[in-house]
Amino acid sequence: MQNKYPSDSITVLTDLVLPGETNPLNNLFGGELLARMDRAASITARRHSRRICVTASVNHVAFNKSIPLGSVVTVEAKVSRTFSTSMEIYIDVWIEDRESGIKVKANEGIYTFVAVDEMGTPMPVPPIEPQTELEIQRFEAALRRKQLSLVLAGKMKASDATELRALFTK
Amino acid sequence: MQNKYPSDSITVLTDLVLPGETNPLNNLFGGELLARMDRAASITARRHSRRICVTASVNHVAFNKSIPLGSVVTVEAKVSRTFSTSMEIYIDVWIEDRESGIKVKANEGIYTFVAVDEMGTPMPVPPIEPQTELEIQRFEAALRRKQLSLVLAGKMKASDATELRALFTK
Amino acid sequence: MQNKYPSDSITVLTDLVLPGETNPLNNLFGGELLARMDRAASITARRHSRRICVTASVNHVAFNKSIPLGSVVTVEAKVSRTFSTSMEIYIDVWIEDRESGIKVKANEGIYTFVAVDEMGTPMPVPPIEPQTELEIQRFEAALRRKQLSLVLAGKMKASDATELRALFTK
Amino acid sequence: MQNKYPSDSITVLTDLVLPGETNPLNNLFGGELLARMDRAASITARRHSRRICVTASVNHVAFNKSIPLGSVVTVEAKVSRTFSTSMEIYIDVWIEDRESGIKVKANEGIYTFVAVDEMGTPMPVPPIEPQTELEIQRFEAALRRKQLSLVLAGKMKASDATELRALFTK
Amino acid sequence: MQNKYPSDSITVLTDLVLPGETNPLNNLFGGELLARMDRAASITARRHSRRICVTASVNHVAFNKSIPLGSVVTVEAKVSRTFSTSMEIYIDVWIEDRESGIKVKANEGIYTFVAVDEMGTPMPVPPIEPQTELEIQRFEAALRRKQLSLVLAGKMKASDATELRALFTK
Amino acid sequence: MQNKYPSDSITVLTDLVLPGETNPLNNLFGGELLARMDRAASITARRHSRRICVTASVNHVAFNKSIPLGSVVTVEAKVSRTFSTSMEIYIDVWIEDRESGIKVKANEGIYTFVAVDEMGTPMPVPPIEPQTELEIQRFEAALRRKQLSLVLAGKMKASDATELRALFTK
Repeated sequence: MQNKYPSDSITVLTDLVLPGETNPLNNLFGGELLARMDRAASITARRHSRRICVTASVNHVAFNKSIPLGSVVTVEAKVSRTFSTSMEIYIDVWIEDRESGIKVKANEGIYTFVAVDEMGTPMPVPPIEPQTELEIQRFEAALRRKQLSLVLAGKMKASDATELRALFTK
Repeated sequence: MQNKYPSDSITVLTDLVLPGETNPLNNLFGGELLARMDRAASITARRHSRRICVTASVNHVAFNKSIPLGSVVTVEAKVSRTFSTSMEIYIDVWIEDRESGIKVKANEGIYTFVAVDEMGTPMPVPPIEPQTELEIQRFEAALRRKQLSLVLAGKMKASDATELRALFTK
Repeated sequence: MQNKYPSDSITVLTDLVLPGETNPLNNLFGGELLARMDRAASITARRHSRRICVTASVNHVAFNKSIPLGSVVTVEAKVSRTFSTSMEIYIDVWIEDRESGIKVKANEGIYTFVAVDEMGTPMPVPPIEPQTELEIQRFEAALRRKQLSLVLAGKMKASDATELRALFTK
Repeated sequence: MQNKYPSDSITVLTDLVLPGETNPLNNLFGGELLARMDRAASITARRHSRRICVTASVNHVAFNKSIPLGSVVTVEAKVSRTFSTSMEIYIDVWIEDRESGIKVKANEGIYTFVAVDEMGTPMPVPPIEPQTELEIQRFEAALRRKQLSLVLAGKMKASDATELRALFTK
Repeated sequence: MQNKYPSDSITVLTDLVLPGETNPLNNLFGGELLARMDRAASITARRHSRRICVTASVNHVAFNKSIPLGSVVTVEAKVSRTFSTSMEIYIDVWIEDRESGIKVKANEGIYTFVAVDEMGTPMPVPPIEPQTELEIQRFEAALRRKQLSLVLAGKMKASDATELRALFTK
Repeated sequence: MQNKYPSDSITVLTDLVLPGETNPLNNLFGGELLARMDRAASITARRHSRRICVTASVNHVAFNKSIPLGSVVTVEAKVSRTFSTSMEIYIDVWIEDRESGIKVKANEGIYTFVAVDEMGTPMPVPPIEPQTELEIQRFEAALRRKQLSLVLAGKMKASDATELRALFTK
């Protein structure tokens, strides 16, 4: 399978925050943001693999900044690393100031998707080839995250998680 | 006010068609598509004017192709022409084939927004300067559409609609 | 096929504006209103044709008056003109004052629907026979709108749009 | 306060059943129907009283016929009886056959609303004067329902519920 | 069929009141509460009967206390009485004070469900055996409610409604 | 502040999967499940702290089993560990077989919430005291997760993450 670049499958979902999508503090409801991230990320996974893709896990989402009612929110999803049948998708969330037009980072999240056939059997996905500095950095960290997730789930021995181990033993 | 380009305020809203957004034929429900176009177009109007913007009219939306459940839909909104306090926004809707990745045009629509202050008073917007061939063509057609809309609403005499008149009298 | 009257298929959709349907200015969100108009108009098209009907285009919607949270909104849809397999539906939107009970016109819109069979093939619809003065006026204007839409789409030569041409050459 | 007629405040909410409003058997979800009845009935209560109205109780709703996906549903709400500050609203729900256009009764329900001022204090409502045979019949039955509800809630002694008592002691 | 206890099929649905679920007074919209009660009650009916269950009627819902935006709402549904193929479900709705943690009763409702097979034919359900004092009291009252509903619907003669009759003739 | 137990603030949200909440494979849409987990977990955080709580992060969610349309889904949220102003909430998701009544674990997730005052300033929360074996096990693992999250975010040196380090250096 031929390598692909993150830019081949980037997905941008720009949308408003309407009152029906807020929490009682008048900010975007966390669950609604998680859903938007899931929608954008699943499109990226599908564009990369050209297969049906299902959410396997949410690895991490940080809610650093609340997003007020009326905001313009940009959710941008890119493949950060591929494994045999799965893809880690990195999602950046931006809001922009109406008057100045300046965009600031509000949140980020990491989801994992698996490509499947019509029967639900996992199928191989094309390898990703990161290009920008940030893409390379996220690509490398993805392996540590993967090992960590296996260790915490009891599916890998800590002693085999060489990348991760290096962080703690140097 | 300084001129701006359509690319300065382009808005992309890529999203899935989930079952809760379909009609009984299992295609994207027309009203839901109109709402997505409105959301994307209002963001473009706001980005161009850096003001609160309200929908003034939907000038035309053509539903050429139905959009089946599970599609990836890209709604792309750009300023096609500005008038003193209003902006015509042109919206292209694309769907893409999962296996080939090929995008085809499904619909297009034209909405008009007005920039207002906190009191709802219309406020001037920066002029748009079209750049690509398509942008120039839509910019020119916008004037005919504007005249037409005024004539049909009885707010302009047909004899004063010079651009439009030219279409029929040459 | 026997003629039918607009009153045979009139559809009335009266509903509230709840907080989940507003924009950040606390008025009915434009996209939600477009969706309600689409729902009411599609019922009228179906009642007139007694067939499955799909939205072909939104010809025009004017947002003259914003509709505040808590309003009672009446959407009323009637067939304004029929063509061989399509129907133009005219939609009036009213809001009413709670204390006085007085209704005022807030918006109006014009949608076109096509009647289809189970395979999606366009099917003939019964002719409409307008009765009130307003129905007759809208019936006549519909032909000009139809020609205009064909001319703007490049599907009819301006010189063949005789009804429309009359507006500009008299 | 001047008497009013049921026809003064009748509310008609005609709408489709879209996939997002169904249950797993592909019929209109019961909770969604209850919500539509509540919306229509609250508009009738408000039109009759010209005041803010809040739902006090649902007295009875019978789900006689399931309403399949794609149906056109007409919810029609009328005042059946007024008490000092409350109104009993009778709601009839109809579905219609697409091909024949024939309407059949699917459900009916009875809700009670109270008119309040801005502070939430109950306020008097104009008396209703039923006109058709069906309106008169429902007006009379309303008193028995009211007594019954008070007896079952322990707020009235069975011996004082004269209308109701008559049913069982004759 | 073996008897079952109400505690075997109790269903608890605890959820927030978000802005998209409120009415214009910023309280939980009545229709949304009716829908939540329907969801919880239908799960209880299904757990008791282990069959597909459909809502047959809403017998009574009292809205005693409005439920403000941001509340935590607990909907608790239990079988109060079974008949051959139907189940009466009693639903209690509680809200709790954030600071003190104290729960107060806000509403209650009574729904009836019928167990059906895949074809929609009513099927027998296991008998319920009430245990607590409150369960026993509701079990007994259910028979009077059932008779009443039959009498009011004209399906039972008042003279045959022995349980109910006793209320009025003693 | 007095210690509290996980059982003091456990939250159960049992609900159906309706068609409007599914993905195109007819399973519960991932984003909708994330939202339900967020709602249940935020109620647990609020019950434990008796304060306003905001989602700080989603630490991990594993989608092990897809949840088909029509399922009964139980989301159960408990405090797994408290830090000075934040709470880790562990969420278990169960589905049950209609005919046998057997419950199986479908997913689990870990969210972190922060307690704040009206101004959004973080406020101290009562310490949690785990009681069951599973609660104790999750309590202990929470510290490693916390360190890990700090290390990966660059806010703690790997050498200071003693609990986590022990995993890799033994």
